[in-house]
Amino acid sequence: MNSHSFSERAQRAIAECRRIAAMSEEPERITRRFLTSPVREVHALLGQRMEALGMTVSVDAAGNLRGFWQPPNAHGKRFILGSHIDTVPNAGAFDGILGVTMALECVEIAQELALKLPTEIIAFSEEEGVRFGVPFIGSRALAGRFDPALLKLKDADGVTLENAIRAFGLDPGEIGKTAIDNNVLGFLEIHVEQGPVLDAENLSLAVVEGIVGQTRMGFRFTGVANHAGTTPMHLRHDALAGAAEWITKVESFAKSQPGLVATVGKIEGTPNAGNVIPGQIDLSLDLRHMSNRTRHWAIQELTAESRACAQARGVAVEWLIKLDQVTVPLDHYLMHDLDLAVEAAGFPSRRMTSGAGHDAMVMAARVPAAMLFLRSPGGISHHPDETVREEDVTAALAVCDKFLRRLAAEVG
Amino acid sequence: MNSHSFSERAQRAIAECRRIAAMSEEPERITRRFLTSPVREVHALLGQRMEALGMTVSVDAAGNLRGFWQPPNAHGKRFILGSHIDTVPNAGAFDGILGVTMALECVEIAQELALKLPTEIIAFSEEEGVRFGVPFIGSRALAGRFDPALLKLKDADGVTLENAIRAFGLDPGEIGKTAIDNNVLGFLEIHVEQGPVLDAENLSLAVVEGIVGQTRMGFRFTGVANHAGTTPMHLRHDALAGAAEWITKVESFAKSQPGLVATVGKIEGTPNAGNVIPGQIDLSLDLRHMSNRTRHWAIQELTAESRACAQARGVAVEWLIKLDQVTVPLDHYLMHDLDLAVEAAGFPSRRMTSGAGHDAMVMAARVPAAMLFLRSPGGISHHPDETVREEDVTAALAVCDKFLRRLAAEVG
Repeated sequence: MNSHSFSERAQRAIAECRRIAAMSEEPERITRRFLTSPVREVHALLGQRMEALGMTVSVDAAGNLRGFWQPPNAHGKRFILGSHIDTVPNAGAFDGILGVTMALECVEIAQELALKLPTEIIAFSEEEGVRFGVPFIGSRALAGRFDPALLKLKDADGVTLENAIRAFGLDPGEIGKTAIDNNVLGFLEIHVEQGPVLDAENLSLAVVEGIVGQTRMGFRFTGVANHAGTTPMHLRHDALAGAAEWITKVESFAKSQPGLVATVGKIEGTPNAGNVIPGQIDLSLDLRHMSNRTRHWAIQELTAESRACAQARGVAVEWLIKLDQVTVPLDHYLMHDLDLAVEAAGFPSRRMTSGAGHDAMVMAARVPAAMLFLRSPGGISHHPDETVREEDVTAALAVCDKFLRRLAAEVG
Repeated sequence: MNSHSFSERAQRAIAECRRIAAMSEEPERITRRFLTSPVREVHALLGQRMEALGMTVSVDAAGNLRGFWQPPNAHGKRFILGSHIDTVPNAGAFDGILGVTMALECVEIAQELALKLPTEIIAFSEEEGVRFGVPFIGSRALAGRFDPALLKLKDADGVTLENAIRAFGLDPGEIGKTAIDNNVLGFLEIHVEQGPVLDAENLSLAVVEGIVGQTRMGFRFTGVANHAGTTPMHLRHDALAGAAEWITKVESFAKSQPGLVATVGKIEGTPNAGNVIPGQIDLSLDLRHMSNRTRHWAIQELTAESRACAQARGVAVEWLIKLDQVTVPLDHYLMHDLDLAVEAAGFPSRRMTSGAGHDAMVMAARVPAAMLFLRSPGGISHHPDETVREEDVTAALAVCDKFLRRLAAEVG
């Protein structure tokens, strides 16, 4: 076994992502939904890599590819590394899969260092929620949080989740048994940031503190649709004017609260005609913050603001909470070990929150979970232009080296 | 010939509108587009009324129904009264047609008073622009402003304007000859206000000063679509936040300028998803004011505001002027005569502008034109709930009595 530099490993991990990118449902685009035929190719390639590392390979009933390496004379709990292998339609080449190809490098690093650390790689089958409209199917099963009612979900072609699993040669009846056992030290997911923060700060990586809680709401401003020419300003009940003032309040409020993001992403007007005063405006609000208390306080403030903006114009407003998802903090001990590894590897220490959901969020319900973010150049993700820098992957592998040494020392 | 009180005349004019409302393309709704079959019924009913008054009746090549009354021993120019008989889909019973049924009462009043005033009634064939997408077809022809290129316009069924005219039994080649001659004293259109102003001030009627100039523009704010969870507030280029601030500026600017109305009626977002920061927002702006200079100044101010709102967020903005229609002042002498008639009839004098276009606007290019607005209860128009108060119609007929006496005296 020849030793490779972190830089050579980074090149290999990136090259492997680009090779896997060609395993797609569509000829010129990267689209690899849960349990579609390119997933078999990915399993074959990754399985071969795992076997070459002396790992025991299996695919569980939820379609997760798992490789286990038992070092000689190691008796402790195993550490899991991994991320997902499914993609959104017309995806980039790194979201998810990079965390798997880097996990392969990590296992080889651990082997070269002869660490007495049993290691498992999981290539999660489903995270994006594209095929069945529900995300995290792979990690739900592994975390013992899979609701059998999900088996009735249908994809766009009317195929149930149950039949999709069967068609892939797996037994949906076994899903309940895929939950990982208690003999686990923890889980690390390496993932591209999918945001602009590290790029803006010119940093390679950050340790993730947790996945922010999220509230999704719908707002409806109801005024009176009237003739744009014959209705003077003082006799209007303009739903859009009320909604617009509120949108500016949402923006300025979020800017005033560190860590809060608030987005009005969707707007629909009725009747939506150039010469009619808007009678009704429907809006979405997406609120995220690491503190559930801050997020709930923000809901209070912003609903009160919506009432004020509406009332000032004789407009009515009503709202609905469509989703209220609590914050998922990641494991403090693993996070601390990652911080120390980042410092030991000579990189500036940076913690950040994840504004998006990840497998680590679901896994955290079952095992101590940690995440390492890599810079997303331009903040671009879920797009063919998504990329990753070789220097950042190199840096992350150097951090993993320090991290795995520390883990092995702690359990040794 | 028995003399009727103004109140009896008002009842008749209203009853006639309700009777004509049943002449519709649709069973339970009032929809009467240009040259459709219910128009023949309307022509028959109105023609009969005109003939009963001793008028000479004709239909011109643009489908306008015209009735002319020549009093014995009168030698002066004639005065024209009228409005349109077409409607929007699912219309009210008074928009347009009330100005025709009241014109019939006016002619009878003039006859009873033995005024030496030749009088013409015109029931304009097309004002709403519904069937061929272009409004004022009837008045364009009468004002000598009909562009023969319009004959190629097609309705939703692919029928050209030319063939629609032919199918109605008229000769499209004669449209050029429908322009009214120079032997005209002026034109008066009585019309419902189609706005809330008189109702809010509890007034029956107002003398119209002119039809406000109008600018219609399109604005596009272009930011960067990004993940709503992973993009912190300070790294966003939110097109909707920029557009929203601008909408509030449009509203406050218009409120600060007497007589200005500014409406953002249409808004379209891209990608318009709850969890994505808006990358692009398209908006309409409708600006109207009696002064062309104020309107053009408003365009300057509001485009500058749009740039400021966009730049504050690193968002781009561009705009396009889609329509720029100058103000049409109505005739000062007729307006003054109407003011005096309003006072003589014992009503408070009120001038107002029209925020919507009317046949009088087109006729003003050819003859001195005037308009009298009647209160629209609730400001409701272009809607089945559109109505008119009998007391207001009575008041307007009393004003017309004074007005026609004055006109006859002036020319006599």
